[in-house]
Amino acid sequence: MYPSSIKNLIESFKYLPGIGEKTAERMAFAVLNLDKDQVESFASNMVEMKNNIHKCKICNNLTEDEVCNICSNESRNKKSLVVVDDPKTVFVFENLGIYKGLYHVLDGLISPIDGVNPEDVGISQLVDRVNNGNFDEIIFAFKPSIEGETTALYIKRVLSGMNIKFSRLASGVPMGADMEYVDSLTLERALSDRKEIE
Amino acid sequence: MYPSSIKNLIESFKYLPGIGEKTAERMAFAVLNLDKDQVESFASNMVEMKNNIHKCKICNNLTEDEVCNICSNESRNKKSLVVVDDPKTVFVFENLGIYKGLYHVLDGLISPIDGVNPEDVGISQLVDRVNNGNFDEIIFAFKPSIEGETTALYIKRVLSGMNIKFSRLASGVPMGADMEYVDSLTLERALSDRKEIE
Repeated sequence: MYPSSIKNLIESFKYLPGIGEKTAERMAFAVLNLDKDQVESFASNMVEMKNNIHKCKICNNLTEDEVCNICSNESRNKKSLVVVDDPKTVFVFENLGIYKGLYHVLDGLISPIDGVNPEDVGISQLVDRVNNGNFDEIIFAFKPSIEGETTALYIKRVLSGMNIKFSRLASGVPMGADMEYVDSLTLERALSDRKEIE
Repeated sequence: MYPSSIKNLIESFKYLPGIGEKTAERMAFAVLNLDKDQVESFASNMVEMKNNIHKCKICNNLTEDEVCNICSNESRNKKSLVVVDDPKTVFVFENLGIYKGLYHVLDGLISPIDGVNPEDVGISQLVDRVNNGNFDEIIFAFKPSIEGETTALYIKRVLSGMNIKFSRLASGVPMGADMEYVDSLTLERALSDRKEIE
């Protein structure tokens, strides 16, 4: 029923996750109400981002350069490595501003049940990097999950010959949470990881 | 913290209504995961829609042509006119497929409290059209609201000299609604508009 150019844009919006027919319609009509300049910059920002952003050849993080500005920053602590499964986590850490070491971004987590094997998530690139580097500690910053545990244990095993400390982020009851709503797995972990008060 | 081309696209997504920082970030990252072809067609669909869609010179509906395919359809009933305040309502009616007359799209509703006057919503174009046309009935299909009532009454008054029947969509308890959750204004309207069972 819509003119074809509206229909085409609705279909494009539906490429995005969580966007169904109704939301896509609402967005296409919203685009119609923007200024011509805004629409043109929106469209060119989209294409430019897709063209300019690629993966850092050292850490696999998203960057516009060959090497990202974290890997190329000489003042970062080159002995500490945070391993994440999603480039967004790097930006979350950097926004926090309290970590001064390096990162390595995997292409997801190992998940045998979904057929995702170590080679699919780029473990060998990480192993090469660590073998050629001089890291004291590797910190796994994966979402707490079976896949996160599996991936961390696999990497630790592969690198077991090296003199490196492995750690993961603490997991437990989040700050400010209502005890009533904490799920049982989180509570179990919080109990087994309990910290002595000194 | 994000590379500038990601940041630019996040800002563009924030032009859309109801899209805040977090959702815009999620969408920009989703675009990054699309194929290059998809991103290019998304961007060109956006610009093309903005360039191709304009208002029908007769009814003010959205179209790619000078006159929309409803106004130019000779088989439509030229004596009946549904007046709406949003082009989307035309598509809702057309999808329903039970109305065979014509439409007129206002640029919103009269709202003195918000400083929106009859000339701001294009009442004079509607009046000209009706004066030069041969309509039997004008049906107001506005969202039930004070502004909708005001606009309907204003148009009826301006056109009062003509031999035209004016009506509005029935308003009342929606089909399938739970009586417990029907708001009091709707219930009041449903009671005063009650229909005799014959």
